[in-house]
Amino acid sequence: MTAPDPELGHERADAAAETATVAELGEDAVLARILPRLRPGDAAILGAGDDAALVHAADGRFVVTTDLMVHGPDFRLAWSTPFELGWKAAATNLTDVAAMGARPTALVVAIAAPPSTDVSVLEGIADGLREGLAALAPGAGVVGGDLSASPVLTLAVTAFGDLAGRSPVLRSGARAGDVVAHAGVRGDAARGLALLFAEATDATGEPDAALADDLRSRHPELVRAQLAPAPPVAAGVVAALAGATAMLDVSDGLARDARRIAEASGVGIDFDGGALGPDARIALAGAEDHGLLATFPPDTSVPEPFMTIGLVTAASGVLSVDGRPIDTLGWDPYSGWDGRTG
Amino acid sequence: MTAPDPELGHERADAAAETATVAELGEDAVLARILPRLRPGDAAILGAGDDAALVHAADGRFVVTTDLMVHGPDFRLAWSTPFELGWKAAATNLTDVAAMGARPTALVVAIAAPPSTDVSVLEGIADGLREGLAALAPGAGVVGGDLSASPVLTLAVTAFGDLAGRSPVLRSGARAGDVVAHAGVRGDAARGLALLFAEATDATGEPDAALADDLRSRHPELVRAQLAPAPPVAAGVVAALAGATAMLDVSDGLARDARRIAEASGVGIDFDGGALGPDARIALAGAEDHGLLATFPPDTSVPEPFMTIGLVTAASGVLSVDGRPIDTLGWDPYSGWDGRTG
Repeated sequence: MTAPDPELGHERADAAAETATVAELGEDAVLARILPRLRPGDAAILGAGDDAALVHAADGRFVVTTDLMVHGPDFRLAWSTPFELGWKAAATNLTDVAAMGARPTALVVAIAAPPSTDVSVLEGIADGLREGLAALAPGAGVVGGDLSASPVLTLAVTAFGDLAGRSPVLRSGARAGDVVAHAGVRGDAARGLALLFAEATDATGEPDAALADDLRSRHPELVRAQLAPAPPVAAGVVAALAGATAMLDVSDGLARDARRIAEASGVGIDFDGGALGPDARIALAGAEDHGLLATFPPDTSVPEPFMTIGLVTAASGVLSVDGRPIDTLGWDPYSGWDGRTG
Repeated sequence: MTAPDPELGHERADAAAETATVAELGEDAVLARILPRLRPGDAAILGAGDDAALVHAADGRFVVTTDLMVHGPDFRLAWSTPFELGWKAAATNLTDVAAMGARPTALVVAIAAPPSTDVSVLEGIADGLREGLAALAPGAGVVGGDLSASPVLTLAVTAFGDLAGRSPVLRSGARAGDVVAHAGVRGDAARGLALLFAEATDATGEPDAALADDLRSRHPELVRAQLAPAPPVAAGVVAALAGATAMLDVSDGLARDARRIAEASGVGIDFDGGALGPDARIALAGAEDHGLLATFPPDTSVPEPFMTIGLVTAASGVLSVDGRPIDTLGWDPYSGWDGRTG
């Protein structure tokens, strides 16, 4: 079970009997309501409560990635429940760790919230972080964090991972002849976002919570893929053990991110149009799926849940579909490319 | 030399010949101008450029702390130069690592900026981060980060440290009879902030850059203590090696933070009024000095740069000056306490 359970989020929101703003409660009282909802995880030697935390790094190294999510550019509370927001913050960072071939071990989370924020929002975020970790990276936890004030709700998540002595899987290791494979959904997050913009905005174009709830009941999978994705985090280690030569987290769309591997490795990538499915345009262009794109040596039996979708070529920097070059330079996920794959 | 060199910051700002907003340049071009200004440091195995970084954790553990700085609540660009902002972001996080008795090894830095932000602001922040690290934690560097958009300039710094096999120095280890000692300035950051509010705000109370420049020329040390503090980061390891029983970073004022040690350790703390200097009120109340407050066993020769300022008592939770209890509960750094030490 890796998909978020929306019932859980709603239950917990209802259970928050006493509501108050973070300004009314003050930092210590807010922390007292958030921290019991989080678990430090198996790697924590010392969790929250002192000036810093202390975390195991079993092989004497740690993988680290950091990411900011800001209300407006990155999410809207009219669309995302706090639970979904916490879940997505965990999921996107865990995928960056996985993309190195590492097993996620821990997060630290800093939240800046307007003083008028109801504490139930922060409780919901904490619940989403906890359940996202439990589903996507069992054993990993939140070892520390920070609470501060901002006019704009902001989450800063830093995630850690363990390579168990292996070399990290970089973007630069793909070689001509390698198989290109992908794990995760392709285009669903973009489909969900397009639906939210089309059907969950009011007359002025602003996100509308009631319309989003209605959309969620009609298209649960697509809305969930955008608001609370369940990326194949465990597949990162699977790819590394199978000998992946390059890998990255597909956050900006399959085409744009494939170009990053192509450029870092000095190779080309030719997609198999048939493998991309009936709507190849959105499969290639759709951002925020947070799948894993990896390359494997030619003789590798590509491991589950990866699916072969192309081949690494010697045509340095050239992206193509069934041999026909496509251009992703200066390209935007929702415009600028006509979408034809052949 | 640990104090920031204001000339350096100004030189570099002038040297940024080509200005452009981050929206005009785009993420890749902004990164291309920022990354060369940063150094990954000695602990970096893999720095910025892939999905995540890889960092040495020599003893199989790492200390981690995270902190958000938000324009408005935490800083104002009318007062702080970008260089000072980067410096302070480094300094405050390095001190939290030091307060565990650890040597800082690396930072990751996520910045969210309004699209209209001039790239020179981010360049200045990068210069301040680099020089702050070089001065306060030589060998430590910036191993990774994230750039995103926000209506409000926001910095999220996560800092790492190495304990070299030692136990972390917690807040909870102080014992009755221990010596209370402090390293760093006492009250200077609050004096600087009070001056900025009194003499560098316009008729409407808003921060004013020209008035701040004038104030800076008249009170360089106090303004610097607030805007670009130089805390005694290396003293954290010194305290640990000398056997410190408890330690923390003094961010909310000596009295308020001493209470944290008292409560965590189940002890009292009695300050020596004479050691606090002529203005004991501001020494005890002034926030943001980012000195280190530590306790040492009675027979310890308190190491430089620590200075003995009191004694741990058995009066659990009681804070006093020369034996007279003081109350810091519900107390604010700039009001709520009458300031008499006896």
